[in-house]
Amino acid sequence: MLVVMQAHASQEQVRAVCKKIESLGYRAHSIPGAQRTAIGVTGNRGEVEPGTLEEMPGVQEVIRVSKPYKLVSRDVKEENTVISFPQTAATFGGPGLAIIAGPCAIESREQAFAVAELVQHSGAQFFRGGAYKPRTSPYSFQGLGEEGLQIMAEVRERFGLKIVTEAIDNESLELVEQYADVIQIGARNMQNFSLLKRAGRAKKPVMVKRGMSATLEEFLMAAEYIMSEGNYSVILCERGVRTFADHTRNTLDLSIVPAVQRLSHLPIVVDPSHGTGKRNKVTPLSRAAIAVGADGLIVEVHPDPDRALSDGLQSLYPEQFDTLMAQIRQIAPVVNRIVPAIGSSRTPLQVGGASSKVQPAAD
Amino acid sequence: MLVVMQAHASQEQVRAVCKKIESLGYRAHSIPGAQRTAIGVTGNRGEVEPGTLEEMPGVQEVIRVSKPYKLVSRDVKEENTVISFPQTAATFGGPGLAIIAGPCAIESREQAFAVAELVQHSGAQFFRGGAYKPRTSPYSFQGLGEEGLQIMAEVRERFGLKIVTEAIDNESLELVEQYADVIQIGARNMQNFSLLKRAGRAKKPVMVKRGMSATLEEFLMAAEYIMSEGNYSVILCERGVRTFADHTRNTLDLSIVPAVQRLSHLPIVVDPSHGTGKRNKVTPLSRAAIAVGADGLIVEVHPDPDRALSDGLQSLYPEQFDTLMAQIRQIAPVVNRIVPAIGSSRTPLQVGGASSKVQPAAD
Amino acid sequence: MLVVMQAHASQEQVRAVCKKIESLGYRAHSIPGAQRTAIGVTGNRGEVEPGTLEEMPGVQEVIRVSKPYKLVSRDVKEENTVISFPQTAATFGGPGLAIIAGPCAIESREQAFAVAELVQHSGAQFFRGGAYKPRTSPYSFQGLGEEGLQIMAEVRERFGLKIVTEAIDNESLELVEQYADVIQIGARNMQNFSLLKRAGRAKKPVMVKRGMSATLEEFLMAAEYIMSEGNYSVILCERGVRTFADHTRNTLDLSIVPAVQRLSHLPIVVDPSHGTGKRNKVTPLSRAAIAVGADGLIVEVHPDPDRALSDGLQSLYPEQFDTLMAQIRQIAPVVNRIVPAIGSSRTPLQVGGASSKVQPAAD
Amino acid sequence: MLVVMQAHASQEQVRAVCKKIESLGYRAHSIPGAQRTAIGVTGNRGEVEPGTLEEMPGVQEVIRVSKPYKLVSRDVKEENTVISFPQTAATFGGPGLAIIAGPCAIESREQAFAVAELVQHSGAQFFRGGAYKPRTSPYSFQGLGEEGLQIMAEVRERFGLKIVTEAIDNESLELVEQYADVIQIGARNMQNFSLLKRAGRAKKPVMVKRGMSATLEEFLMAAEYIMSEGNYSVILCERGVRTFADHTRNTLDLSIVPAVQRLSHLPIVVDPSHGTGKRNKVTPLSRAAIAVGADGLIVEVHPDPDRALSDGLQSLYPEQFDTLMAQIRQIAPVVNRIVPAIGSSRTPLQVGGASSKVQPAAD
Repeated sequence: MLVVMQAHASQEQVRAVCKKIESLGYRAHSIPGAQRTAIGVTGNRGEVEPGTLEEMPGVQEVIRVSKPYKLVSRDVKEENTVISFPQTAATFGGPGLAIIAGPCAIESREQAFAVAELVQHSGAQFFRGGAYKPRTSPYSFQGLGEEGLQIMAEVRERFGLKIVTEAIDNESLELVEQYADVIQIGARNMQNFSLLKRAGRAKKPVMVKRGMSATLEEFLMAAEYIMSEGNYSVILCERGVRTFADHTRNTLDLSIVPAVQRLSHLPIVVDPSHGTGKRNKVTPLSRAAIAVGADGLIVEVHPDPDRALSDGLQSLYPEQFDTLMAQIRQIAPVVNRIVPAIGSSRTPLQVGGASSKVQPAAD
Repeated sequence: MLVVMQAHASQEQVRAVCKKIESLGYRAHSIPGAQRTAIGVTGNRGEVEPGTLEEMPGVQEVIRVSKPYKLVSRDVKEENTVISFPQTAATFGGPGLAIIAGPCAIESREQAFAVAELVQHSGAQFFRGGAYKPRTSPYSFQGLGEEGLQIMAEVRERFGLKIVTEAIDNESLELVEQYADVIQIGARNMQNFSLLKRAGRAKKPVMVKRGMSATLEEFLMAAEYIMSEGNYSVILCERGVRTFADHTRNTLDLSIVPAVQRLSHLPIVVDPSHGTGKRNKVTPLSRAAIAVGADGLIVEVHPDPDRALSDGLQSLYPEQFDTLMAQIRQIAPVVNRIVPAIGSSRTPLQVGGASSKVQPAAD
Repeated sequence: MLVVMQAHASQEQVRAVCKKIESLGYRAHSIPGAQRTAIGVTGNRGEVEPGTLEEMPGVQEVIRVSKPYKLVSRDVKEENTVISFPQTAATFGGPGLAIIAGPCAIESREQAFAVAELVQHSGAQFFRGGAYKPRTSPYSFQGLGEEGLQIMAEVRERFGLKIVTEAIDNESLELVEQYADVIQIGARNMQNFSLLKRAGRAKKPVMVKRGMSATLEEFLMAAEYIMSEGNYSVILCERGVRTFADHTRNTLDLSIVPAVQRLSHLPIVVDPSHGTGKRNKVTPLSRAAIAVGADGLIVEVHPDPDRALSDGLQSLYPEQFDTLMAQIRQIAPVVNRIVPAIGSSRTPLQVGGASSKVQPAAD
Repeated sequence: MLVVMQAHASQEQVRAVCKKIESLGYRAHSIPGAQRTAIGVTGNRGEVEPGTLEEMPGVQEVIRVSKPYKLVSRDVKEENTVISFPQTAATFGGPGLAIIAGPCAIESREQAFAVAELVQHSGAQFFRGGAYKPRTSPYSFQGLGEEGLQIMAEVRERFGLKIVTEAIDNESLELVEQYADVIQIGARNMQNFSLLKRAGRAKKPVMVKRGMSATLEEFLMAAEYIMSEGNYSVILCERGVRTFADHTRNTLDLSIVPAVQRLSHLPIVVDPSHGTGKRNKVTPLSRAAIAVGADGLIVEVHPDPDRALSDGLQSLYPEQFDTLMAQIRQIAPVVNRIVPAIGSSRTPLQVGGASSKVQPAAD
């Protein structure tokens, strides 16, 4: 912490602030400048509460310096975390891009299988689909619940795709942990600390989406909550933030990808479907996400978007997704990435359908 | 919903859009304008998904018109909701302002009683204090839990103050419902729909704080979630939103008070402590909140803010709170409000401490 | 400036950063902390460019500490600036509130006189009206130009109201300086540094409106530009900022009033008309602005808003303005302010119409 | 325009609104819905002022439908505008990407020539450099003025690079128009309508940067201002917007690229240097800008960034720019673009240095 004094602060005021700092159990380091004095505070045990320092005579401002995150930081672990899945080439954070695709919500077995077949054919290794939907309106379709999870487990058996799906409370997390390969925590729950702690005790990797107005620090702290309970397999996901701009539903903040990668060892993927909310923006922003260096994509695909029970407006048609995958294959080498070969995700199926029992492993 | 066509859209394109609308089960109303045609869509059952309309040839834009909220709206109930508490003059939404004060977190019986005595003496009728704290860092003080709730129940017995405290998940809500008079849902949980539904089944009034980037519509929809489960005693609370401005921790958006009052019958209070995050801004913004027409205030007060376990920086000293109350008494008549007389909240204590059993009643 | 090192930065890296700092002509102060080292930089001549410091091995972050403003700061002048006008009680920054009212745009002599008579009667001392309108569309009404200025000069002669009007470029500033009492720089020009410098050479007070996304520091720097050219009579004006919130045209940020007053000696007024963009929000937010401690208000009033050539939607009816003034008179004493008695602004007219020659004087 | 009535609005109220609309000279189209009535307004001459409609009994909301832009719109011109420069392959909006590079500010002939040689060698066809710098502080380096323009004219002669540089007021625009190939209007002047009109009378192409909080509509309207004066050679430039996010100086909004391309025929380039404000983010975001489909890039390059007189923190080292160009060459084909061959910009130099007389031509 740094206490900046006013230009005309007296020596006595500076001394009083230093004394106060020491009475709170910290050390004060006075740094006299050309115009004003600044006082460094060290010896921080936990978070310092600036308390009354800012109110003391002669004080201009108090600036927090140390960062609250630990386990997510490269200070603690320098090399990238790679989350892999046995008997498949799919990883998060490895050289292969993680491509997650599927409908916004699971509506029926037929719909799920139709989409899964198409996205698997185009090259996705992960299947997404909502069984529990956090909807702004209590009167909107809320998802099929456990039935949706069962359908996705069948998708995994049939197509060898790993399953990514959202848990919205402790009850649904219990079930999602049983059925899915990756547990998603949605943007609206990024600071549902109770749910984050529960996810931290889960035995599956957790993908946490950035809150609609989360700073980089808050985003990392959400991951820190999960890791602090012992689950180190955390994937971050940028999905657009809320700004004044009204030409997209959210403003996709691609600059957070290199910013996360500088500070943290965790993988980060991008969701251009929610990040733009408009189908005709999904493909260009997906290309941009790969070009910026993201570890993967999560994209909504629906065979009949205008009859989708939710978010039809932002879902790609299957043929659009296929074109997108072709474009991504061309961009990947520029950022030293590869797109796993089509069909690679089927491997586990061929060796006996063991995919539902795989254990994630964090590197 | 309104579909706006491009200026050079052909008659055929207009017809195709109308046909599509009707195939989805709605009625299309073509409105030819000087420059372009707009098509009104009516007969909406639930929320319309704009689906592929926006992608059709000749379509410029799709504008949503109807509002998703029902129970919160003055369309359904024109007169103001007044939430009252038997054997006391305290209300939300009545002529008397609801003044809620207390420490950010309950730290000990001594601390709670010290603050309660002071704020009760200054004229507060409600006592706030956190037993469950949603903290950005897993390493910060997380609250005393049920012990904190018990201390607050004693505060009610001793001082006749009604208790307002936050629930952060279904488990804590269970306990908060037992001990408190008003259940608070924090800003970070404003779209924790699972928790909102549980609060909607509670037998106590619920105060829901605006999320950090919630629009007016989303804020009202959070209340709608609670009401849709049968609990009509909902209080809204503005607590600052996130913007680019960095001179306060959040930007207090006082204009939402008249905006809510225009659309909804629910009471709305303001939290200038979290809304500014700086002690020296709390008093001016509290005055402004009353002047703008809010139904009450929720203010943090701590006897020794620089040793507070959380949010000390934004807590008023008790003597500052006393001065604030004097100022509010002067402003209240301008907006046709009164501040209940000092000591009025003690009435129930004098008649036998029945306060803990009171049932809230929505008018 | 403060350079924060990574937790695992080596002693050698710290030394290299210190050496770099000194090679740039500054002094380095190393502050070893429990987790990491921070390095204070002093001896700043002008603004320090963090340059490659942030890129050096072992560096986590560079934090700017010193503020770029000087003349606007209380560091340079502790007591409030009071801008007064001879032969009238009207001031900015004195005990009397400065109330500025009038139509968005001057449309005709009849319209201007009608509004002036009404607002003067309600207690305004200043008349506002646009002769040069910065309109988003080149096809919208752009103002009457010099003819509008002449009409306002007649308003001053007739009603004794001081004139506040906007200049949009060097040419119009030349004329506004001749005709008006206060030169307004609009929000869209807050960082038109060329215009700010020209205003700094004007002989009349300048009111500068906060830009739509200006931070407190940028807002103060706009005033600094004007003062750096020798004009110390600067008034700041909050008029709403741009956020995600869509229930008002802008989000009125009342917390900037105490924030400015803490750092600067300059007066600050509030514009709730542009700050909300909706007539039904203007009165509540005007009350709030006075309650928060602003030095005055600038409000749009129009006798026939639905035929106004611009911004009719946010203009008060004259009777609404009259009610507002009555409310403000009640709130003013709470913040140790007075509203000058009705008619007080007419004094100069009665003593010979000298009002157009008055010279503003900054205390 | 669309007037949405309240659910319980009476038939009489609907009739009164329709009558009001017609009294203002428009036509009213009543659209009765399941829950409420909406009234379409047509026959708009210019912009409709919603006036008192929103205040009438029974009215819920007024929604603006028609767009104020004309000349920028694909409604007026369907095919893309291509701005080309005789005797060179460089274009904006053609198949070749427009790559603009150079220092933030021109500091000396040596510095400019050093950078120009390097960026030309890496493949840039345009040279950027500020002669007039809009600086937040009046005490910061403000640019070399006309001397800077002369240096850039020499750069063009020597290296065959086209010159892009900023004008900050009418005076500097006069000179920039003489010396440069493209006149830049900065973000802070995006709504300096007086300057936009002057640029609209210039004989050179104009590149207008998006304001820090400009919506898509306002951005297009700035171009409309220029075009409305007769200059149809307008280039748009996204350079980051202001949001709550603090990990970059601005939030680069790449989604505006496809959004502009949908509505307008004008070319759009991206500035990742100002858009992020951090050197280590410039290369990833530049790649993303090309991948999203932008027509070009404007990038700051400086041989000795830590001694730069402005914005050193965000300038690439020349070797970083060279690497970036190599990456862009790989991504370009994915979006059907090419990067003109290295040295192609020198062609005019070889045929006699005619480059300074070239006339821009809008397709």
